[in-house]
Amino acid sequence: MQPSRTIDLNADVGESFGAYQMGDDEKLLPLVSSANIACGFHAGDPSVMKKTVKLALANKVALGAHPGLPDLQGFGRRNIAISPEEAYDLVLYQVGALWAFVKAEGGVLHHIKPHGALYNMASVDPMLAQAIAEAVYKLDPELILYGLSGSELIKAGEKAGIRTASEVFADRTYQPDGTLTSRRSPHALITDPNEAIKQVVQMVNAGKVRTLSGEEISIKADTICIHGDGPHALDFARHLHEQFGQEGIYIQAFN
Amino acid sequence: MQPSRTIDLNADVGESFGAYQMGDDEKLLPLVSSANIACGFHAGDPSVMKKTVKLALANKVALGAHPGLPDLQGFGRRNIAISPEEAYDLVLYQVGALWAFVKAEGGVLHHIKPHGALYNMASVDPMLAQAIAEAVYKLDPELILYGLSGSELIKAGEKAGIRTASEVFADRTYQPDGTLTSRRSPHALITDPNEAIKQVVQMVNAGKVRTLSGEEISIKADTICIHGDGPHALDFARHLHEQFGQEGIYIQAFN
Amino acid sequence: MQPSRTIDLNADVGESFGAYQMGDDEKLLPLVSSANIACGFHAGDPSVMKKTVKLALANKVALGAHPGLPDLQGFGRRNIAISPEEAYDLVLYQVGALWAFVKAEGGVLHHIKPHGALYNMASVDPMLAQAIAEAVYKLDPELILYGLSGSELIKAGEKAGIRTASEVFADRTYQPDGTLTSRRSPHALITDPNEAIKQVVQMVNAGKVRTLSGEEISIKADTICIHGDGPHALDFARHLHEQFGQEGIYIQAFN
Amino acid sequence: MQPSRTIDLNADVGESFGAYQMGDDEKLLPLVSSANIACGFHAGDPSVMKKTVKLALANKVALGAHPGLPDLQGFGRRNIAISPEEAYDLVLYQVGALWAFVKAEGGVLHHIKPHGALYNMASVDPMLAQAIAEAVYKLDPELILYGLSGSELIKAGEKAGIRTASEVFADRTYQPDGTLTSRRSPHALITDPNEAIKQVVQMVNAGKVRTLSGEEISIKADTICIHGDGPHALDFARHLHEQFGQEGIYIQAFN
Repeated sequence: MQPSRTIDLNADVGESFGAYQMGDDEKLLPLVSSANIACGFHAGDPSVMKKTVKLALANKVALGAHPGLPDLQGFGRRNIAISPEEAYDLVLYQVGALWAFVKAEGGVLHHIKPHGALYNMASVDPMLAQAIAEAVYKLDPELILYGLSGSELIKAGEKAGIRTASEVFADRTYQPDGTLTSRRSPHALITDPNEAIKQVVQMVNAGKVRTLSGEEISIKADTICIHGDGPHALDFARHLHEQFGQEGIYIQAFN
Repeated sequence: MQPSRTIDLNADVGESFGAYQMGDDEKLLPLVSSANIACGFHAGDPSVMKKTVKLALANKVALGAHPGLPDLQGFGRRNIAISPEEAYDLVLYQVGALWAFVKAEGGVLHHIKPHGALYNMASVDPMLAQAIAEAVYKLDPELILYGLSGSELIKAGEKAGIRTASEVFADRTYQPDGTLTSRRSPHALITDPNEAIKQVVQMVNAGKVRTLSGEEISIKADTICIHGDGPHALDFARHLHEQFGQEGIYIQAFN
Repeated sequence: MQPSRTIDLNADVGESFGAYQMGDDEKLLPLVSSANIACGFHAGDPSVMKKTVKLALANKVALGAHPGLPDLQGFGRRNIAISPEEAYDLVLYQVGALWAFVKAEGGVLHHIKPHGALYNMASVDPMLAQAIAEAVYKLDPELILYGLSGSELIKAGEKAGIRTASEVFADRTYQPDGTLTSRRSPHALITDPNEAIKQVVQMVNAGKVRTLSGEEISIKADTICIHGDGPHALDFARHLHEQFGQEGIYIQAFN
Repeated sequence: MQPSRTIDLNADVGESFGAYQMGDDEKLLPLVSSANIACGFHAGDPSVMKKTVKLALANKVALGAHPGLPDLQGFGRRNIAISPEEAYDLVLYQVGALWAFVKAEGGVLHHIKPHGALYNMASVDPMLAQAIAEAVYKLDPELILYGLSGSELIKAGEKAGIRTASEVFADRTYQPDGTLTSRRSPHALITDPNEAIKQVVQMVNAGKVRTLSGEEISIKADTICIHGDGPHALDFARHLHEQFGQEGIYIQAFN
């Protein structure tokens, strides 16, 4: 009998802004073990942050900061040519802002996951990655850094001496070098939910993923990103829960 | 021989933004005992905040957060009809953001002083004042709340169970009820530096101030706001130092 | 047989921002004769503005600019203590920005209607009202200023020499002095759609409205604001169309 | 006797924001023939724009819009990965906003010059360049597009059927292919004012520039960018005037 395994399911939440609603955090949070809460630069505002921290605590999920680029109109998805020092500064700022709400509600900040373009840029730019890891370390070396499995951000976190959680995606295809297939490719997404679940289970159970070209490669899978938007997102998350239950995989926050 | 007295001199710093310079913090910080650092809503940005925290630590002044209304164009000086809950939220957000830089640099956050229109609104609105005091308390009950002497903000801080520092102004005239003469009045400002210094020394030594109408009233003076702008601001601060030295008044951060 | 009457139905549109959706402009625009398009300060962004201008032109509705206070988080609903000169400046800025999209699409700008707190503040503050009317006049004296019926804004527009459209509300109750009952009052809203339609028809046909206290007063009704949000908003607009058809009232843009 | 020649001197102005001052437009404007006025995204605000338009009109310089990326903190100098359509939208928005102030003051908008990173990106990206040229064309085909001499932006303007003004720099060195030497190179800048003036006069008189590697290449010089900042900027502009006077080169807005 194989030992029980655990996996973390994380989701981006708190993305509403003022009168603008986004996502359905109340339905999504019960399905994940850790939450990445927007910090006001690409989404979220102080009032949304407070409400989201409370909601995450009520759902007993691990609380994470989800800092992004200062681009509300672009939802933090457009690359901005910031310097590593600017990345350090804007991560500290946003994580501190979220920390205040967590502290005021009696919670503990668990992790940091950069958002969107900042996440992507830090996946491939070692200097940017190092700056972000350093910001996390200097704020609190107990914080965990979430990043793309195999990315420069994960390497930078390890070098900085902080714990890292390697993130994988259920619905994205992989290249032989372990990177995600570009979204510009027609084969970037796995649209069949069964295929997506099969990929995730293999990543968790065997530490392997079959790439687009057919070969199997090793991949570290500590946490899976669950999307909250799209018509079938919540359904998919529920199926993932069932399948993990049958496989004896426990869902819990990374630690 | 009378016992030695102490007074805190505070100044607003870190008000530059991006390519925009404001104030001369390098010359001002050596002249004060505590610094109110802008937090990015009415002035300041993450990079300016980091630089200012370092500069304040190098000058061994007490570090304070200076949260303001979200109004960079108006420099936080235009009233915005925010609710008490919104005030709570935006104070927590900004103070947390600054706290991150203070923590990363190994410092300790000492106080909170609301800025501009937020300061003025909280001086007279008990609900707003209570919300701000509660935000400070929930973040850390050891933090000190700076507010206008005799104001609703000071009362709210006391009620919330946090320490407060009553702020007085050297160059503003006072009304019989202890409020500042409105800036719309031609007699709002004391333009003669000697008169201003005389007023401050009397407030510190005797706990009294002569109002515009000539009578003397009691006033609590824990900290004095020093302006960094204007052609004679630094000169005035230096004269204040000299005069306090002659009077046996020690300048040190409020505690 | 009484002569045929016309009435303008206007609606606020283009209130999405970046990834944030708001309202259902595609369903709302066919039901109105003039559109107030958000200009990027309280809602809307350049891309949303272009798309909305095209959509409004395709629906052959009159195009209006809907400038607001610089407060995206508060959706322009929080009063900000701007000076009349600042009001003049921000109206010109926003109307010019919208004008560019209208011009680029070969359309003609028809009117200006201030949004939210700016609308409310200009309804009662003659100086603010005058500044806004002057901005409209200096940009183009052919533009029409929409404002609350009987308000300072309408008076300022007339004084400035521009055409004005007096706006009335179907679902709000009126006071004996012609002002709207405050939203803080439990009787501010008319929740029965039949009552609301009856009120509107009387305003259009007879130029009168029955106030909360029961008396009938005169009211000028050039345009009616149709809300696009809320579960029954579109239904209400459709009923209004039917009733106007039966009454021989034609819906067309104010001119 | 050689025919008289003309050249346009342009400068970026109106870069203050709220309480933040930048540049000395009052001293700079008398020295140029055309002004590029910031439009609120990277610098400037509605009140600064109005004031700057008035000042430029008083100095009888040609009025231009200077749209930039939405990045006040980065002063529009950080590349943002916007799409061509987003570039089209944000140029229309900003130019329209400035146009409103020009129209209200009775002036005529003369040209558009993109700012900072938008200018640089459009110099080398044909799609971005085309989108910007199209925005200018659709707004008003009489407007002139200012861009880097030999750049994709100039080509796009010509293709779109609008007039273009080829901009050259006095204090930058050139590469054999006509591009500017990268600022990362130690030889990017010409620090000797006499050398800079000599380069400019040759560009205007002979349509040639000597590149860093020593050869002479052809260059189209319609307008010269004059910087307003730096300790010697105004002195340099005055020397340029003198030298042009001696060479019989008249300074006037491009037409």
